[in-house]
Amino acid sequence: MRGFEPSEFAARTKRAQELMDAAGLSALLLTTETDVRYFTGYLTRFWESPTRPWFLILPATGKPVAVIPSIGAALMGQTWIDDIRTWSAPDLQDDGVSLLAEALAELTVADGKIGMPDGHETHARMPLADIERLRGLLGARRITGDHGIIRRLRMVKSAAEIAKIETACSIAGRAFARVPEVAGAGVPLEKVFRKFQMLCLEEGADWVPYLAGGAEQGGYSDVISPASPVPLQAGDVLMLDTGLVWDGYFCDFDRNWSIGPARPDVKSAYARLVEASDAAFEIARPGATVAELFHAMNTVLTKDAEGTDAGRLGHGLGMSLTEWPSLIPSDETALEPGMVLTLEPGIAVGGKILVHEENIVITDGPPRFISPRIGPQMVEL
Amino acid sequence: MRGFEPSEFAARTKRAQELMDAAGLSALLLTTETDVRYFTGYLTRFWESPTRPWFLILPATGKPVAVIPSIGAALMGQTWIDDIRTWSAPDLQDDGVSLLAEALAELTVADGKIGMPDGHETHARMPLADIERLRGLLGARRITGDHGIIRRLRMVKSAAEIAKIETACSIAGRAFARVPEVAGAGVPLEKVFRKFQMLCLEEGADWVPYLAGGAEQGGYSDVISPASPVPLQAGDVLMLDTGLVWDGYFCDFDRNWSIGPARPDVKSAYARLVEASDAAFEIARPGATVAELFHAMNTVLTKDAEGTDAGRLGHGLGMSLTEWPSLIPSDETALEPGMVLTLEPGIAVGGKILVHEENIVITDGPPRFISPRIGPQMVEL
Repeated sequence: MRGFEPSEFAARTKRAQELMDAAGLSALLLTTETDVRYFTGYLTRFWESPTRPWFLILPATGKPVAVIPSIGAALMGQTWIDDIRTWSAPDLQDDGVSLLAEALAELTVADGKIGMPDGHETHARMPLADIERLRGLLGARRITGDHGIIRRLRMVKSAAEIAKIETACSIAGRAFARVPEVAGAGVPLEKVFRKFQMLCLEEGADWVPYLAGGAEQGGYSDVISPASPVPLQAGDVLMLDTGLVWDGYFCDFDRNWSIGPARPDVKSAYARLVEASDAAFEIARPGATVAELFHAMNTVLTKDAEGTDAGRLGHGLGMSLTEWPSLIPSDETALEPGMVLTLEPGIAVGGKILVHEENIVITDGPPRFISPRIGPQMVEL
Repeated sequence: MRGFEPSEFAARTKRAQELMDAAGLSALLLTTETDVRYFTGYLTRFWESPTRPWFLILPATGKPVAVIPSIGAALMGQTWIDDIRTWSAPDLQDDGVSLLAEALAELTVADGKIGMPDGHETHARMPLADIERLRGLLGARRITGDHGIIRRLRMVKSAAEIAKIETACSIAGRAFARVPEVAGAGVPLEKVFRKFQMLCLEEGADWVPYLAGGAEQGGYSDVISPASPVPLQAGDVLMLDTGLVWDGYFCDFDRNWSIGPARPDVKSAYARLVEASDAAFEIARPGATVAELFHAMNTVLTKDAEGTDAGRLGHGLGMSLTEWPSLIPSDETALEPGMVLTLEPGIAVGGKILVHEENIVITDGPPRFISPRIGPQMVEL
């Protein structure tokens, strides 16, 4: 099923309002694609255009209120939102700011605190000068942080959200299984990238916002570069890492292939990666922390090798390619049923790196792989 | 050719520094994908991950300085940038902020003004709380706006940039020409969307960040919705609007097709759209303003019909799908050679809308279409 029942948005809103009440917030003010969509279901690729700001107000009670450019009114009108206020954007003098200030004045108490997400992994998608202008228009009302409310809500997924992420994972799994059709010695990496995106679409992706990877002798130098025109050759390790989207939700996992036979040290480093992700998987239950998942992997990885510069060994995913939490030693977030995580160990081998990534769901009991779990033997192309 | 010569980045930097000097800025601080790439050539899809902030400092003299997560060091090292400072991100306590503050202290005078883009179409891609923390660490140095410097620079494209946009336009033109292979009565719109993205990739797109459109009887209700599963049927007008990317630069134009014969009023409204974009094209020369382009189109459109809720009739494009300026009555920006614009008239017909879009380059003389200019007769499928 595409979209969500209105009850899903009502439950998200109610939960937010409980947390807002506990934090003493009169409203949340949201500006990013994911945050607006989380409470409305408003799904469009139009956010690719940076021109227009979009605002959603979550008052202390009642449904969210949309303050948006008129070009979005028809689509927003198809969601569960009733109160949609629009202006003709872009407006170089006043791009929705006074309309937003009026709505906030109407929907909050006179000395109310208005929470905007301000912590790690957030940003405000509106001009800095307009934030200042808004502050000026709000009088005694103050803009504060959101007390981590959005993080706390979005980090634990509903069953309906998990189903969408699983669909994205299945599509990517089928596309990865077909990589032998498009990759092999002599094929330029940029052609592999292009063809792999076509496979993702053919297998059912709505769009493919993210594809990275690499292919060099015995590994790769980094995992975020665009594709080079260099043809694959024997001894290369090809890695493709995709975040494709189905109904607004991402998968995020990778696969590695050896072009021809792999060197023994590469084979063994690769097996070590799978061993590391399995070690984290084994302990990924409610009560464990993401720091413990990091250490479970890092212990395996550093037995007789070095790590990479990635900065972490996995993360949350969902409406964004990457989300809270981070699998790093300092993140003590406790696992909860409904969290969706990537396990993404990396290892150095012969001056190059290898990275392996799977997606899992935390449940009441043992976790569950939602990417097709891979074995310790690297596939040869 | 992919990428740019280092001289291109040196010229952009020099021009920025001249404008900074005139505005009394000691540095620019940039945080978004496009702004960082504009001065570095740093091209990666990794920005899709919202987790990590990235910083680029443009000092009053000398090359830009990158303050970035370590995961990006290898790729940034391939650009013309020499001074690359990294931290292991994500860091929940200090995600690059103190490293950034130290760099700014080193690179600017003690009471220097540091400009961040703060105007229309901009945002700061870093947490609001970190901006406040940075202000606190900067002592007598102040963060101000960028005085529109980034807008002024990016709005006028170099020959090398225009060549990339033209390549993107050519790819989209070939993909649009093949739409009859994938669309027709009985085909669900979502399948057309999927197949069209595959055509874009097959014709040479690096990726397809944007596709919107619609298909309803005699027009469509909006132009930003994702695809529905409804099959195309006789009397529908199918519109596809794509922003595909080649080497980091966008095209942005659309095409319309009638499924079977079009109604006379639809045919005539469509011809009016083409007439409107031609009217703007005719006067699109240095010295004219974008407001005049708006009025040239609007006069044709409102002769005996109504407009749409789009809010404007075209815009700039380049590294972003949409950029400054906006074709609206209040934007008095004068055209300059090197500007790349979309002409995007919309019209209401029988309760639906039709939108037509072409891409043009402003030159010293007459403008030039870089999307394959369409005729006034709607193509039937």
